[in-house]
Amino acid sequence: MNLTESEKMRKDQFFYLPLGGAGEIGMNCYVYGFGEKGKESLIVVDCGVAFPDSETTPGVDLILPNLDWLIQRRDQIKGIFLTHAHEDHIGAVGLFPELSKIPIYARPFTAANVKRKLLDRGGDEEIVHIIDPYPNSITLGPFEISFLPVSHSIPESSGLIIQTNTGKVFHTGDFKLDKTPVLGDPYDPKLWKAACENLDILVCDSTNVSVKAAAKSEKSLKKDLVKLIKAQNGMVVATTFASNLARLKTLADAAILSDRSIVLLGRAMRRMMELALESGIIKNFPNVITPKQALELPRSHVFILSTGSQGERRAASAQLSNGKYQGIVLSEGDTFLFSSKTIPGNEVSVNKIINNLTEKKVNVVESEDGLYHVSGHASRSEITDVHNLLKPRIIIPMHGEARHLRAHQLLAIENGFESILAANGSLIDISKDKASTLAQIESGRVYLDGRILVGANSGVVRDRLRMSFSGHVSINIIVDEDDELLDEVWVQSHGLSKNVVEGSLDVLIEETVLSSLKLLEDETILDDEKLEKVIVRSVRGIVLELINKKPEVTVLINRLVSYV
Amino acid sequence: MNLTESEKMRKDQFFYLPLGGAGEIGMNCYVYGFGEKGKESLIVVDCGVAFPDSETTPGVDLILPNLDWLIQRRDQIKGIFLTHAHEDHIGAVGLFPELSKIPIYARPFTAANVKRKLLDRGGDEEIVHIIDPYPNSITLGPFEISFLPVSHSIPESSGLIIQTNTGKVFHTGDFKLDKTPVLGDPYDPKLWKAACENLDILVCDSTNVSVKAAAKSEKSLKKDLVKLIKAQNGMVVATTFASNLARLKTLADAAILSDRSIVLLGRAMRRMMELALESGIIKNFPNVITPKQALELPRSHVFILSTGSQGERRAASAQLSNGKYQGIVLSEGDTFLFSSKTIPGNEVSVNKIINNLTEKKVNVVESEDGLYHVSGHASRSEITDVHNLLKPRIIIPMHGEARHLRAHQLLAIENGFESILAANGSLIDISKDKASTLAQIESGRVYLDGRILVGANSGVVRDRLRMSFSGHVSINIIVDEDDELLDEVWVQSHGLSKNVVEGSLDVLIEETVLSSLKLLEDETILDDEKLEKVIVRSVRGIVLELINKKPEVTVLINRLVSYV
Repeated sequence: MNLTESEKMRKDQFFYLPLGGAGEIGMNCYVYGFGEKGKESLIVVDCGVAFPDSETTPGVDLILPNLDWLIQRRDQIKGIFLTHAHEDHIGAVGLFPELSKIPIYARPFTAANVKRKLLDRGGDEEIVHIIDPYPNSITLGPFEISFLPVSHSIPESSGLIIQTNTGKVFHTGDFKLDKTPVLGDPYDPKLWKAACENLDILVCDSTNVSVKAAAKSEKSLKKDLVKLIKAQNGMVVATTFASNLARLKTLADAAILSDRSIVLLGRAMRRMMELALESGIIKNFPNVITPKQALELPRSHVFILSTGSQGERRAASAQLSNGKYQGIVLSEGDTFLFSSKTIPGNEVSVNKIINNLTEKKVNVVESEDGLYHVSGHASRSEITDVHNLLKPRIIIPMHGEARHLRAHQLLAIENGFESILAANGSLIDISKDKASTLAQIESGRVYLDGRILVGANSGVVRDRLRMSFSGHVSINIIVDEDDELLDEVWVQSHGLSKNVVEGSLDVLIEETVLSSLKLLEDETILDDEKLEKVIVRSVRGIVLELINKKPEVTVLINRLVSYV
Repeated sequence: MNLTESEKMRKDQFFYLPLGGAGEIGMNCYVYGFGEKGKESLIVVDCGVAFPDSETTPGVDLILPNLDWLIQRRDQIKGIFLTHAHEDHIGAVGLFPELSKIPIYARPFTAANVKRKLLDRGGDEEIVHIIDPYPNSITLGPFEISFLPVSHSIPESSGLIIQTNTGKVFHTGDFKLDKTPVLGDPYDPKLWKAACENLDILVCDSTNVSVKAAAKSEKSLKKDLVKLIKAQNGMVVATTFASNLARLKTLADAAILSDRSIVLLGRAMRRMMELALESGIIKNFPNVITPKQALELPRSHVFILSTGSQGERRAASAQLSNGKYQGIVLSEGDTFLFSSKTIPGNEVSVNKIINNLTEKKVNVVESEDGLYHVSGHASRSEITDVHNLLKPRIIIPMHGEARHLRAHQLLAIENGFESILAANGSLIDISKDKASTLAQIESGRVYLDGRILVGANSGVVRDRLRMSFSGHVSINIIVDEDDELLDEVWVQSHGLSKNVVEGSLDVLIEETVLSSLKLLEDETILDDEKLEKVIVRSVRGIVLELINKKPEVTVLINRLVSYV
C-alpha cells in the first residue's frame, strides 16, 4: 500500500451502523457510510417496524428505530434501499417527516408495496425508484449497489452488494437457500459466487442460526397439503402471512387439486393478492369466490385462506374462532390449519384461537415447521454453507436478538472466519483488515402512538403501564380567593375496586386527604408543587393501607384567586 | 336392580363438577357431590390459583376460581382434599374467608406447605389434617377417600380414590409414570390396579396429551448433567422450579460429583429446602454455602441453584441476568442452564433473560424437554397405558385447556372407552351407566387484586386495561353557588404525550371543553350525569382528533352551592 492510498484510507472511512434489527427481530434499519470522517455519504438499508406487546408497550401502534442520528445527517443520505416488503423492513417508511424526501430504491413488488404505504400515509410516491437486479447496479456517490435476488417468504427478496473503493459488502437481507421456492427467485449459488467475488464483508441474517435441521423447500409442501385437504369432509381454513405469496399459491393449488373453491378472508389477504396480480408476481392464481358464494357450496368444496396466523385480535382467524366472519361459521367437521410458525410472544393469542376452535369441535392442525410450513430463514447448516461459499474476510451477524447474533458470531469463528458483534448503535469500521468498533451511537426506539411519535423514554408509556398495574386516582382541591383551602375534596378512582372492606374507597380517600390537609402550613398551601406532593403521598398511603396498591395520582388544584 | 335401589339411585346423585382447571392449566378446583338432590354432601379436590398476565390481567396478583356456588353450599362441604403442593392446586387456600373453617386433608409435605401458607395469610393451621396414603382411607359422610401415591414433579403427589355406594372414581391429580423419580413415590402399576379395581370413573390429567414421546425418568438426567457441569470452567447456574425437589437433588448431586459447592439463590429455593428438610422429604441434601462464601471460591467450584425459571421479573435468575444478585455477577465463561420448560405465555420474559445473559457472553443452555429436563406429566402413550391398566367405565379428561380436554376425549374414545367432556361449570352425573351433563353452573374467575378479591367482570381490570391502551384525562369544572359554570376548566392528562403538533395537549383539551360548555343549557348544567357525558364526549373528541386516541376520562364536578 503506498502513501497516497494509506492516506486516503485514513481520510475515507467505510462503516457499518445498525440502528435497528441487531438486538431484536424487527425494526430493521442499517446504515453504511463512506467518506471523510464527519462528511460521509450514507445509504440506509431497510426502514422497518417492530410490533408492540401489552407487557412493555400497551396502546402503542408501532415500534420504530430511533433515527435521530440519521435525521441529523439527512443531507448526507443518498438513498434508502429496501430489501423486501415485510413490515419489519419497510414498515417505518413515511413515518419520519424529516426523511420524507430521500429517494427510495427497490425492486418492483417491494416498490408497489411501499408506494401503497406512502399513499396511505400522505407521502410522495415519486420518491420510489424501481431497480433491476444484479448484474444491474446503481451508483450513488461513492457507492455502487446491486440487488442480488435471494429466496425468502415474500417475492423479490434481495440482498445488497455494496461496493466502495475500499471494499465490498454483501448485506444478505432475509434469506433462505431454496432452490424451488414456488414463487420468486430460486437460490442460485453460482450467481451468488459471481456477484460476491473477493468479498470483504458478509453482513448476514442470523434469525435461524440455532435451528439445526436444514429448511425444507416451499415446493415440498404441496403433496402433504393435498393429502391433508383431501382427507377432510368439512370446510378447510388455512392461515398464513398474507405476504407469503408462494404459500398462498401452494395452498390454493392444493385446494384446487382437492376440488375446492377458494375464499380469501381478511383485508391483508385481498390487498396482497391485488398487489401480486397488479405487479405480475402471480399470473395464474386460481379463481376466488366470495364468502357469500362459499355459503352456497357444500362445505367439502370450500377452502378459505385467512389472515391472522399470529393470533391478531381483529384478523379473520381470531374472528372465525370467536364466532363468525363475513357470514362464515365454523363447526364440528371443519378443519383449521396453521400453515405458519408462531412468533415468540404470540403464543398466548394463538393458543386462544386454538382453544376457541376446539370448543366448537373444529379440528385444528398445527405446523410449527414441518409438513405444512417451512421457514423463510436459513438454518445453521445453510448459514455455514453461505460462509463457505462466499469466503468473506469478515462476517458481521445481523437480523437477530443478542442470542442469535452471538451464536452466529461463534459459528463464524468455528467456520474459520473473523467475526465481529455489532449491536444496534455500534459504528463499525469496515475499511481495514480488521473490523473494529469506532463509536457507540445513541440508538433505541420510538413509538408511533396513535398519530404521533413518542420517545421510548418519554414516560408516556411508563405512565400507562403504571396505571394498568395500580389504577388511578383523580383528586381535586380548591384554594379560594383568600388562599384558604375549601373544606372539601373531590375524588374519583379508576381501575380500582369501588368498595373495600372498610367502605367506599373514594370516600375513604377523601376523608384521609381532608384530615391531612388540616395539618398544612400556609407555606405549603401556597406552593402547588408542595401541595401536590402532600396530597399524592396521602392518597397513596391510604390506598396502600386499604388494598395494597400504589395508584397513579392526578391532583388538580384550583386556585380561585385569579378568577374573580 | 330392585325398586328400593332404583329409588335410591334417583334420590342419591353422584356428581362431578370442575370449577377450575377444566379449560385452563391452572386454578384447579373440582367438586364431587353425593346425596339427595339439593342436599348433597360435597368434597372439594384442590383449591389452586392461576397466574395473571399483562395482556388480560395487569396488576392482578393471583387468579382464583369463582367459588360462589361452593360458598353458597359451604355447610354441605365435608372437606378439601389437596393432591399436591403446587400453587395451581393449593394457592387459593386461605383466600376465601367463607371457606376458612372447612377441614383440609393432605399428605405431610403438602400439609406442611399449606400450613405455611395459612400462617402467612392469617388462617388457622388447625384445619389441616395429615392423611396416610392408600390403603389407608378416610370416611366423610357418604364418601370413602384414599390418597394413592403418584409420581409428579413435587414430592408426595397423589391421586384420590373416591368411593360412594353408587361408584368409584379415580381422580388422578397431576401425574407421570416414573418408576425412578429420584424423590417421592415411584409409579407402581400393581398398586394402581389393586386400588382401582372395578373402577367406574377415571378423572384424568390431560396436560401432555399432545406430547407423543413417552417422558423420560427423572433418574436419567444425572449422567448428562454431570457431563455438562464437568465440561465448564466458570460458574454454573441452574434454574428450575423450587418445588421440584427431585430436580434440586439431581442437580445438587451432579454438582457434587463435579466437585462444586452449592449455593441456593432466591427466597422460594431456600424456603422449599427448609420445608423439605423439616418434613423429612430430603434427608441427604449436600451442604450449601452462602453467596458470600461462593465469592471466595474459584468460579469452577461454584454451582448455583436459582429461582425464576419462568422469567419472573424479581426472581434470582432475572436479577442475575440484569447484573447482580447477592453479590454474584455472571460473565464470560459462566454457564446458565434452564433445567425447565418454558410455560406458554412466559416466552418473552424467559427470552429476555437469555438475551441479557448472552450480552454478558454467558453460555446459555436450554432444555425444553430432553437432556436436562423431564416433564411432570404423562404423555399421550402413557395416558393410554393408564386407560388400559385401569379400564374404567367412563373417562373424564381434566387439567387442561379446551384443546387438551378434547384431544384426551378423542384419545379415550380411540382407546375404546366412553368419555365425556366436562368444562368448568359442567355438573356431570356420574351415578348412571352413562355420564351426562345435568346443569351448567356459573363458574369463572376472581382476582386477588392487592389485598381484595374482585370479580373478573367487575370492570376494575377492564378500566386499567383501557388506561394502558388509551391513557387517562382528569378534568375538573366548578359550578358556583348560583348554578353558574366558572369560566375555567382544569385538565391533566396521564399516559399521553404532553405535546402534540398543535401545542400542549392539556391546553388544547381545556380550550375545547370550555367552548363546548358555553353552548350548554341550564338543564344540563344542573344534571351531573348529563354534564359529565358532554364533557367526556368533548375530551374524547379532541384527543381523537389530535392524536387518534380515545382516553379514559374522569370528570370531577365541584358544586359550590352546598358548601357555602
